[in-house]
Amino acid sequence: MAVTTDLAIYRTQVLPEWVDYNGHLRDAYYVLVASYAADALMEHLGIDAPYRQRTHCTLYTLELHVHYFHEVKQEDLLEVTVRIIAADSKRIHAGFDVGCARLTEPAASIELMLLHVEQGESVKPLPFPAEIARALETLQAATAGVAPAKRSSRKMELRGR
Amino acid sequence: MAVTTDLAIYRTQVLPEWVDYNGHLRDAYYVLVASYAADALMEHLGIDAPYRQRTHCTLYTLELHVHYFHEVKQEDLLEVTVRIIAADSKRIHAGFDVGCARLTEPAASIELMLLHVEQGESVKPLPFPAEIARALETLQAATAGVAPAKRSSRKMELRGR
Repeated sequence: MAVTTDLAIYRTQVLPEWVDYNGHLRDAYYVLVASYAADALMEHLGIDAPYRQRTHCTLYTLELHVHYFHEVKQEDLLEVTVRIIAADSKRIHAGFDVGCARLTEPAASIELMLLHVEQGESVKPLPFPAEIARALETLQAATAGVAPAKRSSRKMELRGR
Repeated sequence: MAVTTDLAIYRTQVLPEWVDYNGHLRDAYYVLVASYAADALMEHLGIDAPYRQRTHCTLYTLELHVHYFHEVKQEDLLEVTVRIIAADSKRIHAGFDVGCARLTEPAASIELMLLHVEQGESVKPLPFPAEIARALETLQAATAGVAPAKRSSRKMELRGR
């Protein structure tokens, strides 16, 4: 699998209930796997359960874009790698490649735009505290050299094929 | 809810297992709801189980883009409306708005690019048969007047906020 092991943030087997009538991983479950990988990213950055309980802060997903490249079958092993595409004081633009042990290239590329918010009577965007900003900077630097996804987010439209 | 009832193609209640640690519908489950709405769209167009068995043809998702606007809570009632944004001889660019009975505007807008394929030893793109092309044309005409989503697919990037 053409991924660098140290960027792999989440691994899972395809569960039977994730497979659709075509006999493949249903489109939405690629996204669930990326969503679990985003949870792992949060843990990695220190936005974990104790942090969330202490600060009432968490990440919200604002936007998400998926390119599907390959079918994934039941019992396939998936490995998700993460790359920080960009970040500012409150937001993370993360790229996840969903790799499959059977394939040489990713099965799907998924970009997420995540916003750090405080949950209270209303939900307010809030800058990352210093230690999380530092962890994010470190991960961004570590993944800066990773090749971008086969296809990045773009305006969806019918193109010639 | 600011949707035209006759475009509503799928309804569901939020299930307990779809709710994440933030107490809201997890990002991936908005996509699952849209994926079920895409199944309903297939039924509507005649790409149903008997058709799939007879022809070995089905739809594959090539690409998907989500804008999240509002949190959805457990036991919320969701209603998905569909709009055919564009189509050609083999592809459907569909827009789904995930509405929530509690909200006046959509909770999320989701675009899918779907490809008609024949599944065999390999997977081959194949034009829609005439009756499905006609059903698609009819639905496209019927949804041509529907207001576009609050936000359409675009290249994801950090923008000022």
